[in-house]
Amino acid sequence: MKKTDKPYAIGIDLGGTNLKGIVMDKTGVFRHLTRVPTEAEKGGARVLENILTLIGELVTKEGGSDAILGVGIGTPGFIDQDGTVLGGAENLPGWKGTQVFRPIMKKYGLRATGGNDVTVMALAESRFGAGKGVANIVCLALGTGIGGGIVTNGHLYKGTHGMAGELGHIVVETDGIPCNCGLKGCVERYASATGIVRLARTLASSFDAKGKSTLLRIALESPGKLTSKLVYDHAKQDDPYALHVNDVVCEKLARAIGIFLNAFACDRVILGGGVMLAGAIILDNVKKRVPKHCWPQIAERCDIVIAQCGENAGVLGSAAMVFDEMA
Amino acid sequence: MKKTDKPYAIGIDLGGTNLKGIVMDKTGVFRHLTRVPTEAEKGGARVLENILTLIGELVTKEGGSDAILGVGIGTPGFIDQDGTVLGGAENLPGWKGTQVFRPIMKKYGLRATGGNDVTVMALAESRFGAGKGVANIVCLALGTGIGGGIVTNGHLYKGTHGMAGELGHIVVETDGIPCNCGLKGCVERYASATGIVRLARTLASSFDAKGKSTLLRIALESPGKLTSKLVYDHAKQDDPYALHVNDVVCEKLARAIGIFLNAFACDRVILGGGVMLAGAIILDNVKKRVPKHCWPQIAERCDIVIAQCGENAGVLGSAAMVFDEMA
Repeated sequence: MKKTDKPYAIGIDLGGTNLKGIVMDKTGVFRHLTRVPTEAEKGGARVLENILTLIGELVTKEGGSDAILGVGIGTPGFIDQDGTVLGGAENLPGWKGTQVFRPIMKKYGLRATGGNDVTVMALAESRFGAGKGVANIVCLALGTGIGGGIVTNGHLYKGTHGMAGELGHIVVETDGIPCNCGLKGCVERYASATGIVRLARTLASSFDAKGKSTLLRIALESPGKLTSKLVYDHAKQDDPYALHVNDVVCEKLARAIGIFLNAFACDRVILGGGVMLAGAIILDNVKKRVPKHCWPQIAERCDIVIAQCGENAGVLGSAAMVFDEMA
Repeated sequence: MKKTDKPYAIGIDLGGTNLKGIVMDKTGVFRHLTRVPTEAEKGGARVLENILTLIGELVTKEGGSDAILGVGIGTPGFIDQDGTVLGGAENLPGWKGTQVFRPIMKKYGLRATGGNDVTVMALAESRFGAGKGVANIVCLALGTGIGGGIVTNGHLYKGTHGMAGELGHIVVETDGIPCNCGLKGCVERYASATGIVRLARTLASSFDAKGKSTLLRIALESPGKLTSKLVYDHAKQDDPYALHVNDVVCEKLARAIGIFLNAFACDRVILGGGVMLAGAIILDNVKKRVPKHCWPQIAERCDIVIAQCGENAGVLGSAAMVFDEMA
């Protein structure tokens, strides 16, 4: 089959616990979906072996590799265009330095491409989700940390070494809270799940509850029980302390969005990740604040919306990357 | 002549005083260069008329429009993809709202495209200057204000409404000095020519000169004489106060560069504009500071360099935009 006629792509999403893989057509329809354990604790060589096994299963299900254009891999951390993992994936010991693409070509004769796991989610949203129909989007995934992904002129923007999109490390508080990355005041310190828990702990002592706040009592008496979900469960019940914490979270998030909107002036900012399960209580608050933190002409032309691709964003985006780069 | 065979493009650089125009081939070789007064004070309609006259002169010099692929226009402020000026050009009264492309098509049968004047400079550097040979660059032009331009995946990134690249308004000091744009602590307030003069005035009272400082005396006794050039003329002579001001300027600039490097992870950051005539005294200082303000893996893969296209960057970039988008 001629290269340009090959209608399917394999997408792999490398998680700390599971490796998920699909065979997908260009419109986002899955033909096969399968998963195997990552076995991260057994080191980089074993992870690579498991990726190869997963690809093998998918090729078998497809009845051979002839109709497959290539393999896309979304991985934590950074992977360069030659397929070497450059680092930044702390939960995958020994993954740094692994050469991922060549073994795939050798074993299956398939070309491969790769990207950061959150970065490829941006492509999924662009093609199949909340970013459909526009050329320029920025995604923020609010999870344990904050990751980002950028689509410019309709194409995934990975940066030359696959390192673009570290939007969680936009500084929103000069000389603010120290971050793992070495900087201070990164938005990740305030608006990720861990950041929200930290805020809920540290703001408690200075908060003067006008009314009754169950969350404040928890924060003062048993702070170990705090989770970002608990904060937002209370916020939805109008708990005043939970709403205060949310205001701080949304203000920091709006500052970060304002900063990158002045640079990108994109059509849509898409917010995803576990924290965004809280939904409108974050979205509406952030939308209200963003115009104070960037040029009004830019803010009024940009929608801020919630991600739509859910837990399959990783495999969808990884497979979409194959069509984006090889078709 | 078939469209794809047309070897030349017209580039127009719209300045507050002069309109400069060229006919150029794809390699950046000029065939004709001419200029006419902008007559900005006479309003948007007159500016448009002068642009049309300038294009007419260039077409005549070329002996007709048959070999011309299109017209690219670099303008202060924002111009959208349909050729409507959306604003942001304070020194051109009545320019906002002007439809620029249709009259060019009507009068000369030439397609037109446009971009912010600093944004197109980034494309000039990418094709013919300090950004040659790499896919992803960010330019900062340090002049009266600070403008920016972004090239991603080898193409100019204008944002959907031509508003991308407002990198002068990256906030580097939370709740810092108020900026004309309505935000506080924008890098433009510290590292543009006007920002440098302001710093040289305000830092003077608290500076304890260990040695002799001519600049400090000027700042305290006749602050009206301060210019950014004066600051850097003294810095080059090791004037301790001038070096102190430069340290503050470079620290703010490094913070801004760090923030957008975490987002873009580009190959090169290119510094241009009048302020950068100071050269190495800024460049070396900034290079030293940037790794403290972004991910080290990103900083070590990015060069920070000085722009090369000089005063012709505007026309070069505008013409290059034609080849980028129409060829």
